[in-house]
Amino acid sequence: MISSLPRRLLAEFLGTALLVAVVVGSGIAAQQLSPDDVGLQLLENSMATVFGLAALILMFGPVSGAHFNPVVSLADWFLGRKAGKGLSLAEVGAYAVVQIAGGIGGAVLANLMFDLDAVTISTKDRATSGHLLAEIVATAGLVALIFALVRSNRGALAAPAVGGYIGAAYWFTSSTSFANPAVTIGRIFSDTFAGIAPSSVAPFILAQLVGLVLGVLLILALYPGVGDKADDVVVRPG
Amino acid sequence: MISSLPRRLLAEFLGTALLVAVVVGSGIAAQQLSPDDVGLQLLENSMATVFGLAALILMFGPVSGAHFNPVVSLADWFLGRKAGKGLSLAEVGAYAVVQIAGGIGGAVLANLMFDLDAVTISTKDRATSGHLLAEIVATAGLVALIFALVRSNRGALAAPAVGGYIGAAYWFTSSTSFANPAVTIGRIFSDTFAGIAPSSVAPFILAQLVGLVLGVLLILALYPGVGDKADDVVVRPG
Amino acid sequence: MISSLPRRLLAEFLGTALLVAVVVGSGIAAQQLSPDDVGLQLLENSMATVFGLAALILMFGPVSGAHFNPVVSLADWFLGRKAGKGLSLAEVGAYAVVQIAGGIGGAVLANLMFDLDAVTISTKDRATSGHLLAEIVATAGLVALIFALVRSNRGALAAPAVGGYIGAAYWFTSSTSFANPAVTIGRIFSDTFAGIAPSSVAPFILAQLVGLVLGVLLILALYPGVGDKADDVVVRPG
Amino acid sequence: MISSLPRRLLAEFLGTALLVAVVVGSGIAAQQLSPDDVGLQLLENSMATVFGLAALILMFGPVSGAHFNPVVSLADWFLGRKAGKGLSLAEVGAYAVVQIAGGIGGAVLANLMFDLDAVTISTKDRATSGHLLAEIVATAGLVALIFALVRSNRGALAAPAVGGYIGAAYWFTSSTSFANPAVTIGRIFSDTFAGIAPSSVAPFILAQLVGLVLGVLLILALYPGVGDKADDVVVRPG
Repeated sequence: MISSLPRRLLAEFLGTALLVAVVVGSGIAAQQLSPDDVGLQLLENSMATVFGLAALILMFGPVSGAHFNPVVSLADWFLGRKAGKGLSLAEVGAYAVVQIAGGIGGAVLANLMFDLDAVTISTKDRATSGHLLAEIVATAGLVALIFALVRSNRGALAAPAVGGYIGAAYWFTSSTSFANPAVTIGRIFSDTFAGIAPSSVAPFILAQLVGLVLGVLLILALYPGVGDKADDVVVRPG
Repeated sequence: MISSLPRRLLAEFLGTALLVAVVVGSGIAAQQLSPDDVGLQLLENSMATVFGLAALILMFGPVSGAHFNPVVSLADWFLGRKAGKGLSLAEVGAYAVVQIAGGIGGAVLANLMFDLDAVTISTKDRATSGHLLAEIVATAGLVALIFALVRSNRGALAAPAVGGYIGAAYWFTSSTSFANPAVTIGRIFSDTFAGIAPSSVAPFILAQLVGLVLGVLLILALYPGVGDKADDVVVRPG
Repeated sequence: MISSLPRRLLAEFLGTALLVAVVVGSGIAAQQLSPDDVGLQLLENSMATVFGLAALILMFGPVSGAHFNPVVSLADWFLGRKAGKGLSLAEVGAYAVVQIAGGIGGAVLANLMFDLDAVTISTKDRATSGHLLAEIVATAGLVALIFALVRSNRGALAAPAVGGYIGAAYWFTSSTSFANPAVTIGRIFSDTFAGIAPSSVAPFILAQLVGLVLGVLLILALYPGVGDKADDVVVRPG
Repeated sequence: MISSLPRRLLAEFLGTALLVAVVVGSGIAAQQLSPDDVGLQLLENSMATVFGLAALILMFGPVSGAHFNPVVSLADWFLGRKAGKGLSLAEVGAYAVVQIAGGIGGAVLANLMFDLDAVTISTKDRATSGHLLAEIVATAGLVALIFALVRSNRGALAAPAVGGYIGAAYWFTSSTSFANPAVTIGRIFSDTFAGIAPSSVAPFILAQLVGLVLGVLLILALYPGVGDKADDVVVRPG
């Protein structure tokens, strides 16, 4: 971690904001331009996310690690704590605050770019048992992927790997893979394709935390004994 | 091979399970969301598989080689046996058992994520002469690709290469390219887009074994004289 | 900068011409072949641009830096001026002239390849407040991405990163992300899917210049203190 | 060039055959599965080609250079002749013979995989003035891309670069970018989506040869003075 904390928090704020702007904005465009086929909308939405998320990880990774996700920051703390190199818990808290603020800001930005009201509250209920199982799977897989890369010195691959993983998870999970509490909260604030009703948010976040635990257990089982490297930033220039 | 056998078997189980969850789950989503165009369904299904398979190879490659496929494990044994470095035949057997178990588990997981019955048996007959020829071609190409990379010290490219190859083979083969006995068996257990009727499974696996032989012959013809490297794991961090 | 200025100007002319030919040409094809769904047209148009732009950056990057965009050339001058290594302002002017000429030439080429009149003037008004906000965001993100890569010695990733970013920005911005004054001017000259009416051009370019300033400020905030490397060419062979 | 000539010819035969099988086979699948939208068919066809062509270049590149295209082989001879390292003209002839044979074989293979007659002659006339201009542009760009990579020691990027370029060129050229005499001849033999009527073949190949000259001139203008490296194989393991 070379960058100062304020600079890292700026990067996390902007990165999460732009991530939600990508998710929500491309969802609005897809809904408007392909009104006859929801699958086509999701294909457009997911392809934009694959490429956009990868670009954002490249853009902000060397500054803050490009977490954009409190679950990832928590895992970074937990898996790096023994070697004293991960985020501190206080830093995780600060990361989470700006990630959530960024998530909300990104939804507002997307709304404004498409000439919609700055804030609308989503009415899309998403909390079914299948969707919650999907969030557990999606989040566990995300955590396992990121820290598998970190613990095998392949952090430079995080951009295409994570972008691609999320793009796939839009499809193979029934929930379209939120897998991120900050993004989940941000997506409340746009009553459009990618929105989520407030009543579904707590169950989604709870499922994501279960997925976090599962993902960390997977890493401890599959990539043990490399604790001294666990605090590598997710992305680092070669 | 650094990891212990139990750890490698866990990786092969989880990787194959998640691979089938990707294939079956994205097939269910595609079928539900794009009901009017089967081609669009297959495009959605294939794009999810490209990105998902690549992510899984990155996630589990350094642990087990990320075979997820008994045909690949067999080829690894055969091509590496002279140098005494590939999987042993006993290990191939253990790999195959957990790959098949994973394949079945992945179909169940996909069903549950989409709030379907945990197990349904596919009724989709697939065994035509064209499809069997397609499975031979698809499997031979898969084996040739993987071991071309291994034998030219480019194993680190396996994730995008294999993901992309399978995505292409969904389209250029008439069978949509199963090319994997464990995945074929797993796909029995979901009567959805990506399913396969039990009566078609034996011919498909037989064709895949013919493809395995053909692929190995191609490697021996095109990349001879590098037997001492044949047991490199498929994916290894740079 | 190894290449002579005339060679670099040839590369910028050809690269910008081919970039506009990709954008306009694939737009024409999409409009003709998928008449029933504008979203599908944009998906086809954006995927062609992702792959085409990446290829062009690889093709011309080692010669001229593959800017293809006066905004990028301006940022290169500004961010590299302290170390005396970026483009000079005179060179920026020369780059801009050939970029604009190339942009126009590329639209003509696309029209001719599709057996249309060599020049038609677009009638598509695009200047809404949402679109102008979108151009600011899209351009700021583009500048931030490119110089984040440059300032962290990852310029070799520019081809997939920039191609992917623009592909995402087609979707997450409401304007479909022009983000480039030369391309904006070129797109006047084809009254087809990707065209822009002359009356919308000045507001778009103004918004792009605002985005340029914002992007440069972001780079100074996130990647300070590396002024001595700011003049690296965008793409350089490994 | 390490491999013996017979091995290289086998690689060129198989690679060209599989390339045409990818192009023709995915075209048949697209036509059958997405009957209502020709653009969607081309999107499916082009995405399969992006991924399939990249995989084939990885598979055969270290053996033969993965030309799969007489135009590329001719450029390899011409650009490498001064340093005495490119293909000899006799080798170009041998390459072209097996490339053409492979192209025909690949069309037959695709037909058989889809349970069609082994050989049908395409009735799709394609020779318009716009299409011929498009073939010149597409071929010049292909040659320029490949040898830009070769002359800047980035041959290892050929697989994604060439795959992506061709995928873009399916869309931005009106001809869908054949850009390859062997593939053009092969595509005569399938009266399906990707076919070409025999009467259009000679004009297409002529246009491709014009594109070859143009592409070589571009390389000489943009990447001069590196003649001693011009005979590097297109793809070489890192």
